Amino acid sequence: MLPANLLTELQRTFPPDRFYTDPVDCYSYAYDNSRKIFPPDAVLFPLTTEEVRQIVLLCNQYHVPLIPRGRGTGTAGGSLPEFGGIALSMERMLNIISIDPANRIIVAEPGVLNQTVQDAAKPHGFFWPPDPSSAQFSSIGGNIATSAGGPHAVKYGTTREHVLGLKAVTGTGDLITTGCYTTKGVVGYDLTRLLIGSEGTLAVITEATLKLSALPSAVAGITANFNDLSSCTQAIVNIMALPQLPSALEFLDAGSLNLIRGRYPNMLPVDTHAMLMIEVDGFDQDISTSITAILEACRSDGLISAQQANDTAALWQARKALSPLLKEIAPKKINEDVVVPVSTLPQFLAGLRRLSDHYQLHNVNFGHAGNGNIHVNLLINPDDTEEVSRAERCLDEIFDLVIKLRGTLSGEHGIGSEKRAFVTKEIDHVTLDLMRNIKQVFDPNNILNPGKVFPATP
Amino acid sequence: MLPANLLTELQRTFPPDRFYTDPVDCYSYAYDNSRKIFPPDAVLFPLTTEEVRQIVLLCNQYHVPLIPRGRGTGTAGGSLPEFGGIALSMERMLNIISIDPANRIIVAEPGVLNQTVQDAAKPHGFFWPPDPSSAQFSSIGGNIATSAGGPHAVKYGTTREHVLGLKAVTGTGDLITTGCYTTKGVVGYDLTRLLIGSEGTLAVITEATLKLSALPSAVAGITANFNDLSSCTQAIVNIMALPQLPSALEFLDAGSLNLIRGRYPNMLPVDTHAMLMIEVDGFDQDISTSITAILEACRSDGLISAQQANDTAALWQARKALSPLLKEIAPKKINEDVVVPVSTLPQFLAGLRRLSDHYQLHNVNFGHAGNGNIHVNLLINPDDTEEVSRAERCLDEIFDLVIKLRGTLSGEHGIGSEKRAFVTKEIDHVTLDLMRNIKQVFDPNNILNPGKVFPATP
Repeated sequence: MLPANLLTELQRTFPPDRFYTDPVDCYSYAYDNSRKIFPPDAVLFPLTTEEVRQIVLLCNQYHVPLIPRGRGTGTAGGSLPEFGGIALSMERMLNIISIDPANRIIVAEPGVLNQTVQDAAKPHGFFWPPDPSSAQFSSIGGNIATSAGGPHAVKYGTTREHVLGLKAVTGTGDLITTGCYTTKGVVGYDLTRLLIGSEGTLAVITEATLKLSALPSAVAGITANFNDLSSCTQAIVNIMALPQLPSALEFLDAGSLNLIRGRYPNMLPVDTHAMLMIEVDGFDQDISTSITAILEACRSDGLISAQQANDTAALWQARKALSPLLKEIAPKKINEDVVVPVSTLPQFLAGLRRLSDHYQLHNVNFGHAGNGNIHVNLLINPDDTEEVSRAERCLDEIFDLVIKLRGTLSGEHGIGSEKRAFVTKEIDHVTLDLMRNIKQVFDPNNILNPGKVFPATP
Repeated sequence: MLPANLLTELQRTFPPDRFYTDPVDCYSYAYDNSRKIFPPDAVLFPLTTEEVRQIVLLCNQYHVPLIPRGRGTGTAGGSLPEFGGIALSMERMLNIISIDPANRIIVAEPGVLNQTVQDAAKPHGFFWPPDPSSAQFSSIGGNIATSAGGPHAVKYGTTREHVLGLKAVTGTGDLITTGCYTTKGVVGYDLTRLLIGSEGTLAVITEATLKLSALPSAVAGITANFNDLSSCTQAIVNIMALPQLPSALEFLDAGSLNLIRGRYPNMLPVDTHAMLMIEVDGFDQDISTSITAILEACRSDGLISAQQANDTAALWQARKALSPLLKEIAPKKINEDVVVPVSTLPQFLAGLRRLSDHYQLHNVNFGHAGNGNIHVNLLINPDDTEEVSRAERCLDEIFDLVIKLRGTLSGEHGIGSEKRAFVTKEIDHVTLDLMRNIKQVFDPNNILNPGKVFPATP
């Protein structure tokens, strides 16, 4: 329950269509793609930086949790109002403030969808490289909060590399301006990157200066099918050792392929146990040079076939078929996005198979192999407590394996609430304490997205 | 003077050849390329992270300034021991810890020279993109402390984009480990980029995980000469609007060309008043496509000639000739590295000319035009107080112009001590206070490089 005085003050400032308190209205802001449900006590829809400032000042005064939210597409529970409080939906801060093709920059408010940025950039020959699978529906504010990536990160990097500056409101209601409007700049500490990936725990982003990249003049793709996992993982390692990086290098394991085959019996070669979808972009000559090299890198006794796809649709056909099937197959999936160094992928994927066999768990693994970023999905029945317990123990061992291989627990989804129990596997307590102290500087009363990112203090 | 107990403890721990206290020995650590002189009370040469920790703990206990130092090639005074204390020379932490071509990574200690990293990467087909002009002599620790860039930043970015993780010791002697060993990772706050460019004020870097890039398969260059500035700046804008970024786009103004012409009468076309050196890299086909497009982008009434250079030496001939001449010409040069949005370069360079005319100052301007990063050099006689005063007023107006054009005061040199008086022109006091509070978290007793980066508190 919100303090009565706070409610009164907010009602005075915001019209009812921008301040929800009815639980029915608030319910849509209770969940994200982690599928957990924590209804907020209220939802606010600011339109301006100044309104964000007013809201933060009030929440700080009354010590009420404020949970910034993009479009709720996150999978790690980062936007869940676990402790109630106010969901701060940025979805109506929708202005593209400027499009500046000469300087390859778009300045936009946080509610602008990733796709809208792409649409604004495209006529000028540009795009904004972060490409989460939610790009059509997710906002740049959310992309920035998680340092979102996607298939093209292998060549273009993630959000971190494509934001020049931010405006943001800290937990004390201070408006800060970070970074610059140029591609180079070293004045003051890099608060821009500190905020990128901080999942709304340090400040509410109210404006972003996005760095655009030139659209490639041509794109081509290869699909490669392997009858064993190790030939496939070796091909990944070989491809990543080539000088020109592919613009995407995606992997589907046997579990993924079996799912697809169950629904679409003729889509895949019969013996395929592992598949790669490889995209290259650039000039025509780049592409033909790369394709020759990649086809060569795929060659092994385990290769069934590797060939150039006719078009982008053909390249991504299997991957696109997979997503809806995954949602159907199991009442619950534990969805992770661990990353390991590319050279350890053979070891990691073999270990993953060993662990899922040992714990007798059905799992489906796929993802951004070029970055070593594998989406591990453990498919479980949440009503089967024994299976749930096995899955938890398996997950714990998977994370241990990732860390042993010098990997990281999350490549793009973030920690949110889903992974915070595991953060100490990766970050030592000294470094974590320093991060907590930084949080304290930005948000001394811990009102901004409390409880996220950090493991519960013992 | 250092406290006697501190001296005793350090003498007990470090042999004399790694702990200088004789002023004669210390003098070599009193200056950098800003040419100011502040002798430290002592110099320490740690060999390990643990030794760095011991030193920081002692300095913190005795509240003695500790000034981390790479190879002293910085131009902004960032490594000057202004308040005495101990210069912490990292020059003997020289180990390359691992070379991992399969994952495109080198892990190195901070004293390793940039050039040594390049030499280690090259046999594997890789390089580390940060390329300050000091690359042969400067250390990666120093490069990271300033987020160093160079001519190739226009295509490859600066140090910020090429470091995956760090080990560092904060001002309280805490060893922190930041980032990860993979190209993607979003676990915890991005302390890696917070430390990059922080000029040794937050922590002492003791190990860096460097992300390598593939060496281009071919490189070519164009030199273009213009008989007026505005044709040249328009060509810069045109080139930067092309889809493929040049790998370098360097500019020399009339002042620079006159200097060169004075010494080498036949190196340049007679009427040249502005010159571009443009490098492109990639595959052969990329290059020929780019060269055609760039030659077209240079075309204007003011173009004297634009042609492909025979080789890299020919491309950079004028630029290389300039550096020693600059050192000779004036008793003092005020050397800035401001950045403006590329599209505003015509306006900026015209303004710069207007200001130098108004203040009757000789100036020479050149630099990384593709990033809008111009090295402005005001040439003055430091004994002429009236001229010095004019230069100071001119500089102030130059910075105002830069900010008005949405630029930044430093693209790669950093703030150090040289520019701190101007920081408030760019960063508002709220944001600056937040940075001060972050400094306080890392270094509560303000022992690490005190006084740098921030303007003096009023």
